[in-house]
Amino acid sequence: MSPATVPAIDHASRVASLTERLPLGNGCDAIVLLDPIDVRWLTGFTGSTSWVVISHDELVLGTDGRYADRARQETAGCGARVVVEQRRGRLDERLIEAASRASRVALDPTTTSHARWGELAGALSPEPTPSLVALQRQVKDDAEIARIEAAARAAEAALADVEPLLLATVDEPMTEHDVRTELEYRMRLHGADDRAYDTIVASGPEHAARPHHGAGRRTIVAGDAVIVDVGALVDGYRSDMTRSWVIAGATDAQRELHDLVVEAQRAGLDAVRDGATAASVDAACREVVEREGRIGWYLHGAGHGVGLEIHEPPFHAPASEEVLASGMVVTVEPGLYRDGVGGVRIEDLVVVTESGHRVLTHSPKRPLPSAGAAEQP
Amino acid sequence: MSPATVPAIDHASRVASLTERLPLGNGCDAIVLLDPIDVRWLTGFTGSTSWVVISHDELVLGTDGRYADRARQETAGCGARVVVEQRRGRLDERLIEAASRASRVALDPTTTSHARWGELAGALSPEPTPSLVALQRQVKDDAEIARIEAAARAAEAALADVEPLLLATVDEPMTEHDVRTELEYRMRLHGADDRAYDTIVASGPEHAARPHHGAGRRTIVAGDAVIVDVGALVDGYRSDMTRSWVIAGATDAQRELHDLVVEAQRAGLDAVRDGATAASVDAACREVVEREGRIGWYLHGAGHGVGLEIHEPPFHAPASEEVLASGMVVTVEPGLYRDGVGGVRIEDLVVVTESGHRVLTHSPKRPLPSAGAAEQP
Repeated sequence: MSPATVPAIDHASRVASLTERLPLGNGCDAIVLLDPIDVRWLTGFTGSTSWVVISHDELVLGTDGRYADRARQETAGCGARVVVEQRRGRLDERLIEAASRASRVALDPTTTSHARWGELAGALSPEPTPSLVALQRQVKDDAEIARIEAAARAAEAALADVEPLLLATVDEPMTEHDVRTELEYRMRLHGADDRAYDTIVASGPEHAARPHHGAGRRTIVAGDAVIVDVGALVDGYRSDMTRSWVIAGATDAQRELHDLVVEAQRAGLDAVRDGATAASVDAACREVVEREGRIGWYLHGAGHGVGLEIHEPPFHAPASEEVLASGMVVTVEPGLYRDGVGGVRIEDLVVVTESGHRVLTHSPKRPLPSAGAAEQP
Repeated sequence: MSPATVPAIDHASRVASLTERLPLGNGCDAIVLLDPIDVRWLTGFTGSTSWVVISHDELVLGTDGRYADRARQETAGCGARVVVEQRRGRLDERLIEAASRASRVALDPTTTSHARWGELAGALSPEPTPSLVALQRQVKDDAEIARIEAAARAAEAALADVEPLLLATVDEPMTEHDVRTELEYRMRLHGADDRAYDTIVASGPEHAARPHHGAGRRTIVAGDAVIVDVGALVDGYRSDMTRSWVIAGATDAQRELHDLVVEAQRAGLDAVRDGATAASVDAACREVVEREGRIGWYLHGAGHGVGLEIHEPPFHAPASEEVLASGMVVTVEPGLYRDGVGGVRIEDLVVVTESGHRVLTHSPKRPLPSAGAAEQP
């Protein structure tokens, strides 16, 4: 389903570069992958049930009968040997068979259930190892960035359609749910395969004051702060963007939130570059807010990586020890939230570069209308 | 976001009946829940990060700062003590504190990662225990069934809108993706909060021959077998339904598939009743197909439970040892798939009753048009 305009993904070179890293520092000469996202990134296979064993000799992918054709088609480029078994137990035996040829096997304990680990432990004694693929996935290649950009285009086009409807809610009332419904529908009309995540539409003095409100049946009215957090999915890759409004005219308190977030976001963007720490991006945003004595309204970190998953490392948070590198795709999204007033979050998606960043999300950030502007002659 | 027309869910009585089962057969006098679906079922809390400790004395729910307000509001009815901590590490300490008052703690190894189990094992030595909540969740109460029915209504209304567009693809071409886009949009216009799962639209001699095709960019044309598998989400609960067509006229091979599936599905439905085994529902479908020597086209089990998750126990499959009980909500969905011809799947959602079942999905199952009918005078 990859759009005609984006380059093909070169899975063979991913396999080659992962193979070159074997044996790992902990002595493992084979890696077992059970997380479908890791499997997709490495091989291109999009089915929900699979395992992969990668060693110096070979790449083996196991799946069940539902996915036999799809597995062979999708992994043709990376030279995987595909094993198909109808029964779950037999499919596990084949996994153990393929992995037993290694002297020590790496497995990621964060994406493997304790029960599943126990089933494999007797035969394989896996070595708990951070998922190499998860680490390698952080830096995106051009084919990945092209898909993320195509997703961002679809989300922007949908928002351009829906923004006038949102702003006209005073005359033609819209609920949060209505706004979400139209955005997700129109992203697809504009070429997206799907939404990237559940669209957030948070409005008014309570909902917009909660960073993780979803989208409810509340009607959006004049005076509401509104936060819209929307992204699209293209060939497995995701975009992520947030814009904020005040309907029909902002109060001074709303304007204060807005101006501070605009400034904090600019500071956060300025902090992004190859070699900077992820924590420093959050610190840059936080500093602006702290200087004004408003840090109590700053309720979440300033961003995260985006790719096949909507939240990937690195995370812009005080405790993060991650370092940004060219080719990472990250959000910069400070937000301020104040009960009874509402909230503001502004989020862009950027590619980290040597000297700074390149912005992927271009929807306009509109200045706030003045309160009472509508009533003025 | 619960619709005005459905009764409220009584979380307090769920908590009471779970508390009555303590201590468990394995001696555990407290249960730790980490799966968000289990937490939601028991307490009503819909946030993505949480833990619950339930013992004879009390019910404690922990979450982070993003969800403080929501947690207190949503769990007010079940008397949970809500613990809020901003930092992940501190939130875990509070979990250990709450669970340490028990002499032995139950934890489900299938929904807990191996890494997370390791983090808690030192302090709690949890006893691997099948999730009680997962077991209790199988039998639905009236409030749950009302939500599932509301979801089924929204999906049926959307399908009624889109079926004429699908059948008119010969004149106004539609892709699989177009059909999915319209169905998911219209389910929301008809009152659903969302889709229940990624809608399947599988068309033509290849896609429809694969039970787990999603929905691609293929244009649906005359002669295509088309399978549409669509469900809606209402207040967390899901519906599930499949209908099949042949566009503009069926061949004999397509008609054979269709007639066999209709008969198999009727046999499957007839096998559903309180006390019947889940395996017997699959066996009833299978028998019809086997009798005609076509079992090679029967590629998956005949159904599954539906509720807060789209696939829950029981599973209608040969190896299943589960027994149906009144109040379970299950699908009956035999399918046949034949490369080069296409596929047919017909799926209804039913509530198990003492004497049989009550059907929740009412979209018409249309007879197939004859090949060449359009050309006849």
